[in-house]
Amino acid sequence: MTADPVRRDPDRLFPADPSTRAIARDLYARVATAPIISPHGHVAPGLLLEDRAFPNAAELFVTEDHYVTRLLHASGVNVRTTTDGTTCDPREVWRTLADHWHRFAGTSSAFWLESELHEVLGIRSSLSPETADAIFDEIGARLAEPEFRPRALFRRFGIEFLATTDDPLDDLASHAALAASGLGGRVVPTFRPDRYVDPDAAGFAGNVAALLAATGEATTFAGYLDALRARREHFVRHGAVSTDHGVEEAFTAALYPHEAERLFQAVLAGTADAEQRRLFRGHMLFQMAGMSVEDGLVMTIHAGVFRNHSSETLRRLGADSGHDIPVQTSFTRGIRPMLEAFGLEPGFHVVLFAIDETVFSRELAPLAGFYPSVYAGAPWWFLDAPDAMARYRSAITETAGFYRTSGFIDDTRAFLSIPARHDTARRADAAFLARLVAEGRVPLRLAERIADDLVSAIPREVFKL
Amino acid sequence: MTADPVRRDPDRLFPADPSTRAIARDLYARVATAPIISPHGHVAPGLLLEDRAFPNAAELFVTEDHYVTRLLHASGVNVRTTTDGTTCDPREVWRTLADHWHRFAGTSSAFWLESELHEVLGIRSSLSPETADAIFDEIGARLAEPEFRPRALFRRFGIEFLATTDDPLDDLASHAALAASGLGGRVVPTFRPDRYVDPDAAGFAGNVAALLAATGEATTFAGYLDALRARREHFVRHGAVSTDHGVEEAFTAALYPHEAERLFQAVLAGTADAEQRRLFRGHMLFQMAGMSVEDGLVMTIHAGVFRNHSSETLRRLGADSGHDIPVQTSFTRGIRPMLEAFGLEPGFHVVLFAIDETVFSRELAPLAGFYPSVYAGAPWWFLDAPDAMARYRSAITETAGFYRTSGFIDDTRAFLSIPARHDTARRADAAFLARLVAEGRVPLRLAERIADDLVSAIPREVFKL
Amino acid sequence: MTADPVRRDPDRLFPADPSTRAIARDLYARVATAPIISPHGHVAPGLLLEDRAFPNAAELFVTEDHYVTRLLHASGVNVRTTTDGTTCDPREVWRTLADHWHRFAGTSSAFWLESELHEVLGIRSSLSPETADAIFDEIGARLAEPEFRPRALFRRFGIEFLATTDDPLDDLASHAALAASGLGGRVVPTFRPDRYVDPDAAGFAGNVAALLAATGEATTFAGYLDALRARREHFVRHGAVSTDHGVEEAFTAALYPHEAERLFQAVLAGTADAEQRRLFRGHMLFQMAGMSVEDGLVMTIHAGVFRNHSSETLRRLGADSGHDIPVQTSFTRGIRPMLEAFGLEPGFHVVLFAIDETVFSRELAPLAGFYPSVYAGAPWWFLDAPDAMARYRSAITETAGFYRTSGFIDDTRAFLSIPARHDTARRADAAFLARLVAEGRVPLRLAERIADDLVSAIPREVFKL
Repeated sequence: MTADPVRRDPDRLFPADPSTRAIARDLYARVATAPIISPHGHVAPGLLLEDRAFPNAAELFVTEDHYVTRLLHASGVNVRTTTDGTTCDPREVWRTLADHWHRFAGTSSAFWLESELHEVLGIRSSLSPETADAIFDEIGARLAEPEFRPRALFRRFGIEFLATTDDPLDDLASHAALAASGLGGRVVPTFRPDRYVDPDAAGFAGNVAALLAATGEATTFAGYLDALRARREHFVRHGAVSTDHGVEEAFTAALYPHEAERLFQAVLAGTADAEQRRLFRGHMLFQMAGMSVEDGLVMTIHAGVFRNHSSETLRRLGADSGHDIPVQTSFTRGIRPMLEAFGLEPGFHVVLFAIDETVFSRELAPLAGFYPSVYAGAPWWFLDAPDAMARYRSAITETAGFYRTSGFIDDTRAFLSIPARHDTARRADAAFLARLVAEGRVPLRLAERIADDLVSAIPREVFKL
Repeated sequence: MTADPVRRDPDRLFPADPSTRAIARDLYARVATAPIISPHGHVAPGLLLEDRAFPNAAELFVTEDHYVTRLLHASGVNVRTTTDGTTCDPREVWRTLADHWHRFAGTSSAFWLESELHEVLGIRSSLSPETADAIFDEIGARLAEPEFRPRALFRRFGIEFLATTDDPLDDLASHAALAASGLGGRVVPTFRPDRYVDPDAAGFAGNVAALLAATGEATTFAGYLDALRARREHFVRHGAVSTDHGVEEAFTAALYPHEAERLFQAVLAGTADAEQRRLFRGHMLFQMAGMSVEDGLVMTIHAGVFRNHSSETLRRLGADSGHDIPVQTSFTRGIRPMLEAFGLEPGFHVVLFAIDETVFSRELAPLAGFYPSVYAGAPWWFLDAPDAMARYRSAITETAGFYRTSGFIDDTRAFLSIPARHDTARRADAAFLARLVAEGRVPLRLAERIADDLVSAIPREVFKL
Repeated sequence: MTADPVRRDPDRLFPADPSTRAIARDLYARVATAPIISPHGHVAPGLLLEDRAFPNAAELFVTEDHYVTRLLHASGVNVRTTTDGTTCDPREVWRTLADHWHRFAGTSSAFWLESELHEVLGIRSSLSPETADAIFDEIGARLAEPEFRPRALFRRFGIEFLATTDDPLDDLASHAALAASGLGGRVVPTFRPDRYVDPDAAGFAGNVAALLAATGEATTFAGYLDALRARREHFVRHGAVSTDHGVEEAFTAALYPHEAERLFQAVLAGTADAEQRRLFRGHMLFQMAGMSVEDGLVMTIHAGVFRNHSSETLRRLGADSGHDIPVQTSFTRGIRPMLEAFGLEPGFHVVLFAIDETVFSRELAPLAGFYPSVYAGAPWWFLDAPDAMARYRSAITETAGFYRTSGFIDDTRAFLSIPARHDTARRADAAFLARLVAEGRVPLRLAERIADDLVSAIPREVFKL
C-alpha cells in the first residue's frame, strides 16, 4: 500500500477466471445498492440519537475496534486506554497503525478500513507511514462536516433495519426516542440476557436481584422466569425481533420445576459447583427457547468462544480487548434437549452461529436441513471474511441450499464499517453463486433470484421482519 | 430453473478455467460410460426381481427419498406417510416439490434429480410451479413404458456390480433368484449386523435370540459368535463381498473370553450400564474384524452419526426420515485395538467412512497411508457432492495418493439416481485431476491412468471383486 | 510418468488462471533463489561434518524416508531394515519404488522426489519400471562425484541457516567442529528435551538420572530444573535459537513448588498414575516456557500426534517408521496456563504447530492475532504440501495476516529434499498471494514485500536470527 492514488478494483473479491468473474459482476450488480438489513449488531443506539460528530481517525477506526487493536497488540503495541487511564495521542495512534499497516494485509480489518476510507470518506491516497498525517487530517476535516454525522451516514448507507444489542434491564428509552426521531430506517433492540442467566457471569447474583427488583418478582425460579418474560415483553413492545445468547458451550437441558428451583437457589447462594452451574446455564438456554415459542422472538445462539483468555489484559484493558479465543464446538447432542422440546414448534426460529467451522458441514447444514426452526448462521466474527464465507457456502450449500441460512449479519459496533461488511458478503455470495453457474450447477436465472433473496427475502424470513 | 427447454451443460462440474476444463473434459470422456461398480448401496433386491413399473414421480423421486423430504420438512412441509397412515396425493406432492424447488438449488439432491429427469427420463423442461403438472404426467407416461422398468434400466445404466444391504437372518432367496434370472450384472448382498451387535438397538435381546434360534447355537458368547460366523458364511455363499457397520462412535475393544461372556449375558439381560454396552459394541466391532480376517469379507465402517435426532419425528415418520445428524468423529485411538490385532493381517480390508470431514487429512489419510488394510472411504452421505468431493481429494491425496481410497460408493436406495451419482464422482475426480495436471503436479498420462483406475481397478482391489 | 524426457513445468503449483498465474510467476521470481533459512529440521550434523558420499538411490531416497516407506508399506511392501537385521538389496528397493510410483501421484513425496531427481541430480527421464535400473545407475554415478557430497550441496542449495535437533545431553562437539569447518552457512543445534520431561518416554527415570549426573545436580525438582537450565545454556553457547517440544496433547499446568517436587519424585519412582504423569508433562512444558523467557530460546510446540500407532511395527521396524497418526488437537484451554504466566513477556516467542488443521482458523490465528508471543506455525508434516499450504493461508490470513506466521520450516532429515520443500512453500505462497492480488484484496506492491518477507524477515524475526 503506497502513497499512489487508490483505485479500488471494481471486481474485488470476484474470482479471477474471466467467465466466472463476468457472472459474479452481474449478480453483484443486482444487489450492490440494495437496502441494508442488519438483524444483529452492536451499534449503540445513542450514537444515532445524539448524532455527534465522530472525534478523529484514531478513535473512529483504531482504538475502539478490537479487531484492529488486537493485531497491533500482537505486534507489541497497545493503543487502547488502560484501566489506569493512560491514553494515547490520536495522531500517534494513527501513525502507529500506518507503520504496521502491512501486518494487516489480507485481513478483513484491512479490507473494511480501506473501504471505509475510500467509499465512505472519499480518501484517495492509501495508508502508509508517509501518508499517515495527511490522511489523519483529511479524515478530521471530513468528520467535522454535517454529512459525516451518524444520522446522515445512516441514511446514505441505506440502512433499512438495524438491530442493536441491549441489556434486559435497559428501559429502551433511546430506542423509543430514535423511533420517534424520523431517522428513516427501523432501529430495534435485541434482548441479550447472558449476565442474568449465566451463574459464572460477573455479579450474577446481583444481576438477578436487580432483575427481580425491577419487575417486582419473588426470588423463586418461577418469579425469575416471569421477570425475564416481562423484560422480553418490554423488548417486544419496543420492536425487538430477536434474542442473543453468547455461550462457550452449546448445551441445553430440560429440568423438572423442583430441580430448577433448587438449582436456582444454589446458583444465587453461590453454593453450586461447576457442573450445577453448567446445568443451570443449559436449562436457561432451554427456557429461553420456550419463551421464544411464546413471544415469537427469534433466538440467536453464538457458541464456542472462551472469553477473556488473558487475565492480565482483562485487568489492564477490560473486556472485548481482542483475546476472546474460539474453542471446539458442537451442537448435535448439546442442543438436542431444546430441539426435542421446541424444534418442531411452528414459528420457532433459532439461528446457530459458530466460529469452529468444522460444524458447518457436520452439524449446521444437517440440522438446518431438517428442522424448520433451525437456520445456519452466517460466518461470524473471525470468519466474517471472503475466504471464510466461501468455505461456509461450500460446506453448507450442498446439504442445505441457500434458504436455510440466516443471511448476513454484521455483528459490529463499528458503525462506519457496516456498508463494507455487507458489501463483502454480497460480493462473496455473488462469487460463490457465479462459480455454481459457471460449473453448470445452478441456472443463471435461479442464481439471480438467490442473490436477490440473500439480501432481502431470506433475512426477512429468518428474523421475521 | 425455468420452463425453458433444459440444456444440461456438457461441462458441468468442471472448473471454469478453460485450460483446466479442457483437461477435465478429456479425462472424464475416458470414463463417462464405463460400467458402474456399486460396492455399497441400499437398493432392495426385490426391486430388480419383481421388476414392477415405478408408480409415479412423487413416490419415485420425493416421498421415499429422505434427502428430499428432509429439505421439504425444513421448509415446513411433510410429504411422507405418517405412522397414522396419512398419505399425500402424489400430484400434490410433486407440485409441492416444484413450489420449493429453488430451496434445493446447489444441493446434491437437485443435481441428481435434474440428471434423472433429463438423462434417464428424457424430460426436456425444467421443474417449476408452471411445469409441475406437465412433467408429472410426462414422467407417468415414461414409467409405464417397459424400458423404464428396473431391469431394463439396470442394463441401460451399465451396472456391472451392485451390492445391496441385508439383514443377517435374510435367507437371501431374492439374491439367489436374481442371480438365476439372467439380469446381466452381478447383484450381491452385504452383511449388516448392527441390530444384532449393538445392545442399544431396538429389540436387541430378541434379535439375538432369533439369531441363535436360526443357527441352533447356545446362548453363550461362543455360540453367539458362531451364529454370526454361520450367517456370514451364508452371505459369502451368496456372493457377498463386504460387511457394513454403522456406528455412532468408532470404538473397538479387545476382551478376554470370560469378560466377553459376562458382558454378553449382561447386555442380553438388560443389566449392562451405558459404559458396558459401549464396551460390548466396541468388542463386537473388534470381533467382526477378526471374522473378516477369517472369511475375507471387506469391512466397511460408517462412523459418526447420531441417528433419529428428533424423537417425535421418529414416532410420526419412522427411521430414515432425515434427522440423522453427524457428530464429532475420530478414529486414531478408537480403532487402534482392532488395528493392533488385525491391521497388518494379509488380506484384511477395512474401509473407513466419515461425515466429519476433519478426519480426512488428520486421520484417514495417515491411517490409509500406512496400514495395508485401511482404505479412506469416499465422501459419504451429506458429503456425496462435488465441493465435498473436491475437499476430500484435496485433504487425502497429498498424504495418501489415490490408491489408498475406496473408489466411489453411491450408498443409495434411490435406484434411478445411481448413474447420476457415479457421474458426479467421475466428473469431480476428473476436475480434481485436471487441476493437478494444470498445476504441473501430475503428468497427463498418469492422470489418465488414475481416472481409469478410480472407476475400475481401485474399487475392484478394495472390495476384492 | 513415462520414460519420456522430463520437462518440469516452470509454472508448477501456480493457479491455472492466466492472469493469476502471471502474478504468481512474478512474485515467485523474486524469491526463487533467495537463501534458505531452515529454522527447524532433523538433518544430522555429522552428515555435513563427515561429508561422505551418499551411498545409493535406495538409501538416499527410499529406505530412510518414512514418508516413502509408509506408502510402500500401505501397498504391502516393506523395504526398511527390520530389527532382526533383514535388509533389502538397494537396486531391488529402487525397482519396487518404480513399480509403485503411480501410487505416489499427487503426494508431497512424489513432488519432492521428482524435484530432487531433476533439479539436484539432473536426471532427465521419469521414473517407471522401465527406467528404474538406468536411473538407479545414473544416480549412483552422480553420487560418486565430489559435487554431490553433502557440503558441496549445502553450498549449492544456498542454505544460510540450518537448525538440527539434538539431545539435551549431546556435547554438541559436531556443531562446534562444523562451525569451525568453514562450511559457509550457520548450522545450529535445537534443544529437544521430550525424553527428559515426559514420564511416559522410554527410559524416563534413567534419562533423568543421566541428566542429573551430567550436570552434577541433586535429585530434587529444583536440581532437575537447574540441570535443564544448564543444558539449555550449553545449547545457547553453541548457537541454538530454539527448543522443540513434541506433545500428543497441548496441555500446560502451573504448580506450586512443593506439588512439583512431590510429582517429580512420584514420576521418577514410577508410582504416578496417568493423570499425574499428564500433570507433570504439562508442568514441564510450562517450565520450559519460563526458561525460554529467561534464556531467550524460541519455543516450538508440535502437538497432536499419537506416536507409534502399531506396536508390532514399532517392534519390527523401530520408531519413525510411518505410523505416527494425528489426533484431535486444541490449544485454547490447554496452553492458557502457560500464556497466563508468560504470554505477554517481552521477547518470549512460542510457535504452535499442528496437524489437525481445524485449529488454524479456530485457534492459531486468533491466538497469534492477539499474543505478541504466539506465532502460527507453518503447515507441518502431513500438511507440508501445496493444497494444505493453501488451506493454511486461507484459514489464517483473514484473521492474523502474514506477519503472525512462522515462515516455512522443512522439518526434514532428508537433506536432498530441503530445496524442493522450500521451493514448494515459495510457490504455494506466491500462488496464494497472487490470488489476493487478482481479487483486488492486496496491492501488488505489498504482495511483493510480503513474498520477500516470508522467506527472510519473518523467519528471522520469529526465530530471532
